[in-house]
Amino acid sequence: MDASYKPHDRMAALLTNEMAAVNSLIAERMASEHAPRIPEVTAHLVGAGGKRLRPMLTLAAARLCGYEGPYHIHLAATVEFIHTATLLHDDVVDESGQRRGRPTANLLWDNKSSVLVGDYLFSRSFQLMVETGSLRVLSILANASATIAEGEVLQLTAAQDLATDEAVYLQVVRGKTAALFSAATEVGGVIAQAPETHVQALFNFGDALGVAFQIVDDLLDYQGQESSTGKNIGDDFRERKLTLPVIKAVAKADVEERTFWHRTIERGQQNDGDLETALRLMTQHGTLEATKNDALNWAEKAKTALMVLPDHDVRDMLHDLADYVVERIS
Amino acid sequence: MDASYKPHDRMAALLTNEMAAVNSLIAERMASEHAPRIPEVTAHLVGAGGKRLRPMLTLAAARLCGYEGPYHIHLAATVEFIHTATLLHDDVVDESGQRRGRPTANLLWDNKSSVLVGDYLFSRSFQLMVETGSLRVLSILANASATIAEGEVLQLTAAQDLATDEAVYLQVVRGKTAALFSAATEVGGVIAQAPETHVQALFNFGDALGVAFQIVDDLLDYQGQESSTGKNIGDDFRERKLTLPVIKAVAKADVEERTFWHRTIERGQQNDGDLETALRLMTQHGTLEATKNDALNWAEKAKTALMVLPDHDVRDMLHDLADYVVERIS
Repeated sequence: MDASYKPHDRMAALLTNEMAAVNSLIAERMASEHAPRIPEVTAHLVGAGGKRLRPMLTLAAARLCGYEGPYHIHLAATVEFIHTATLLHDDVVDESGQRRGRPTANLLWDNKSSVLVGDYLFSRSFQLMVETGSLRVLSILANASATIAEGEVLQLTAAQDLATDEAVYLQVVRGKTAALFSAATEVGGVIAQAPETHVQALFNFGDALGVAFQIVDDLLDYQGQESSTGKNIGDDFRERKLTLPVIKAVAKADVEERTFWHRTIERGQQNDGDLETALRLMTQHGTLEATKNDALNWAEKAKTALMVLPDHDVRDMLHDLADYVVERIS
Repeated sequence: MDASYKPHDRMAALLTNEMAAVNSLIAERMASEHAPRIPEVTAHLVGAGGKRLRPMLTLAAARLCGYEGPYHIHLAATVEFIHTATLLHDDVVDESGQRRGRPTANLLWDNKSSVLVGDYLFSRSFQLMVETGSLRVLSILANASATIAEGEVLQLTAAQDLATDEAVYLQVVRGKTAALFSAATEVGGVIAQAPETHVQALFNFGDALGVAFQIVDDLLDYQGQESSTGKNIGDDFRERKLTLPVIKAVAKADVEERTFWHRTIERGQQNDGDLETALRLMTQHGTLEATKNDALNWAEKAKTALMVLPDHDVRDMLHDLADYVVERIS
């Protein structure tokens, strides 16, 4: 591993031409002849400087499997459109005011624009994937879309319910994050007509990477640096989200602690000092440490999945990417 | 035409077995193992007793073209899922409290549930259409989805803007209504592998029927009976929507009338008696009558399109259906 150079940046350098093609395709398909509101909203999001991690995973998987056709570009753009649409709908849902330190689209425009422009991006992504002509790719992405939506709805009912356990959390995480990661890598292999074992390995890698990624995100909400995450410490607590560190703390709570979680999370009655108490309980029970270990285990699973795949520069980068995802908490 | 029997009911009687299969498939695919909120919300909508006009159009088109396979059932369910998802998102967008005389899902649950369950239904519809294995069907439905979303966004910016003309209105109507009608009839022909001229005729029929349907809806907002429409007279006026009767009135407005429309629609400053003034202006300029004539013309176009298709019971019913759609305003 080249310590001087982040794996994400190395991959971006290797895939420079393809990423440029993806960016052009995104710009072209995001336009709307009739509805100028659409590029306004989407340009705001695209300008927000996401890492384009998901489309890069598709390009990387296709490259790793020796693909030489044009459609990995379509699929990478598809994946980014689905991701962007999901963000737009999430912002409505969470009534969030900020994402990556910038005001969200629903504050700058309104909920209506966020819902409808999100729908537009979903339908554009659908057109892009149809152009690949691969029914198998369509099936994978249709299933991923259903898992994403189901996970989001599950999160609505699981949030603020102390009965939510780690199994439910994992389902939510698969929906929120891992389903699109695993679809992104899997379709890269499928479009390249890779052997089934390789396609399965790419799916497993994306799934485990996505789960690790989301656990890290949820952990950083309690112990990150505000400057590096663009989030405020304790946002999830204030929004009464049952993420892994809290779920583990609830599982170990005595009667008095349960009363605390019931009041702050289930009933949402939060006072000054409650976040500090929550952090103290999580530290006492070692749940922040246990959450970190879970994230590291998922990163290990991701790396193990890669062992089935052929030796390749890109495979090494994906390996390092799994380490990089958990580096922020190590 | 059998005057004792509505064409919609005759069609339902003819297609009774297929509609039962569609209803079973809808119930089966609407379920969610993990997220019980989903069937709660969707059962509420499905229980609301829509006429299932769109899926019936798909079944009718397939029957008319002699289809004998199983996939018209999938496509009919697909079309109904897309329609239901659109309704859920519209209710968030319109901040509506009622649909068909019942509280909307976003009032009974919340905006979050409406957005996410809508997304779930979109993704389920996508899975259903992938199962047909027809890339052409997928392409038609992807394009229809994009037209729907684009039309909805266009409506956001076109609403409350007196510069909105009949051409923009038509684009919005195609998005809101006609795109799904025409896709519903077209895919029925495509799945049956009908000749191109028949597929095109089915598209043209669905398109014209959809436009007629929406114009009637917009006209009834100003002159319907509240008991029969489930809407309040003047809802669109209060919501400052520029529908065809108003667009035509604005086009004929003198300076004083333009001030009235500017105040009530663009600025949204409405007082008691304004709806009555709006109705008086529309009557004076004959714009309600002109709107009615437009609807009748589109119904004629729909019937003309059918002439290309083979002589068939179902063709006669579709013909009568075009009459029926405009009957409420005739």
